[in-house]
Amino acid sequence: MAVTIPARLGKATRLGAGKSLKLTNTYGSQVVDTWAFIAANMNEFMSMEHSRAAIGGIFPHVGDMMVTNHREPILTLVEDTSPGIHDTLIAACDRYRYEHLGCVGYHDSCTDNLVAALCEFDLTPPETPSPWNMWMNIPIAADGSVSFEPPVSKPGDYVVLRAERDVVVAFSCCPQDILPINGTDCVPQKCYFEILD
Amino acid sequence: MAVTIPARLGKATRLGAGKSLKLTNTYGSQVVDTWAFIAANMNEFMSMEHSRAAIGGIFPHVGDMMVTNHREPILTLVEDTSPGIHDTLIAACDRYRYEHLGCVGYHDSCTDNLVAALCEFDLTPPETPSPWNMWMNIPIAADGSVSFEPPVSKPGDYVVLRAERDVVVAFSCCPQDILPINGTDCVPQKCYFEILD
Repeated sequence: MAVTIPARLGKATRLGAGKSLKLTNTYGSQVVDTWAFIAANMNEFMSMEHSRAAIGGIFPHVGDMMVTNHREPILTLVEDTSPGIHDTLIAACDRYRYEHLGCVGYHDSCTDNLVAALCEFDLTPPETPSPWNMWMNIPIAADGSVSFEPPVSKPGDYVVLRAERDVVVAFSCCPQDILPINGTDCVPQKCYFEILD
Repeated sequence: MAVTIPARLGKATRLGAGKSLKLTNTYGSQVVDTWAFIAANMNEFMSMEHSRAAIGGIFPHVGDMMVTNHREPILTLVEDTSPGIHDTLIAACDRYRYEHLGCVGYHDSCTDNLVAALCEFDLTPPETPSPWNMWMNIPIAADGSVSFEPPVSKPGDYVVLRAERDVVVAFSCCPQDILPINGTDCVPQKCYFEILD
């Protein structure tokens, strides 16, 4: 059964150990912030700073196992039809980001979407872990500088993630509509996921 | 007055807004994990994932302002006599790291050192923020892969950090003695800091 992640919003799901989930970039241009928490202990969660050490790099490749803040495997990237450009460096957007960009009044954010998505399961994130930003295109130059660019993925591209533990996975279709991180038209789009048999 | 950060251990200090602190790599080969918290609100702290977005890169340069998880300036790098190779990508070492490296029994870790250093001020970190790893040499190849290399700094190299808010700064002389991240001899060394007038 396909579950929609509405444009600008978040959605979470439980995923049992050994089960896989297919996340599809319906329109190709959408960044999806992704988190995973150990179902039995929300204080243990997927950590980008621990995963970069574990996988030996900043770009997860097919076969790479992302790890928790306790350095235990949590999600494995088992399939990726896109060019494999996913960000592990940049924080989830938040109210402060949009305030600095000049927004007046409330603006959706991936940080708030994480809280709302988990709330449907009566869960609260202990903090905002730095997310795995699926399809987010942050090129790094030789001097270490980074830039924020539109995704290089195409409509229908998907990743398959396998749970290595019983986890709760949360997604946010990034609501960034000021910078072209969700495509040059700056229009956030919906995506969807399916739990595979 | 110079304050020693003992080899393998941590040390914290309060630093008022506008004040600067000089951190010296006595032997040149030591990595110093560095954290900063807003004194009036420990839930706001220096964040690598927010700072990389703010400074537009993974390597802080002289003049760069590191920001908090609320995207507010917290520490500015105002002087650096070393080649400027400081890591923002890798998690603090922790008990899990040393267990995976085969250590039996207790091993000092930067994560525990942060807790102990703040404890002297009756403070508790709300989480373990990803640290600013001063002098830690993590080269990134063009394909995004990283490696763990000895520091390129020399004895007596120092950085000067200016507080943009009233902060508590914590340091840990990394106790890693299995991988050559603190020099090829794998011997962690002490460092020291001074608060400047």
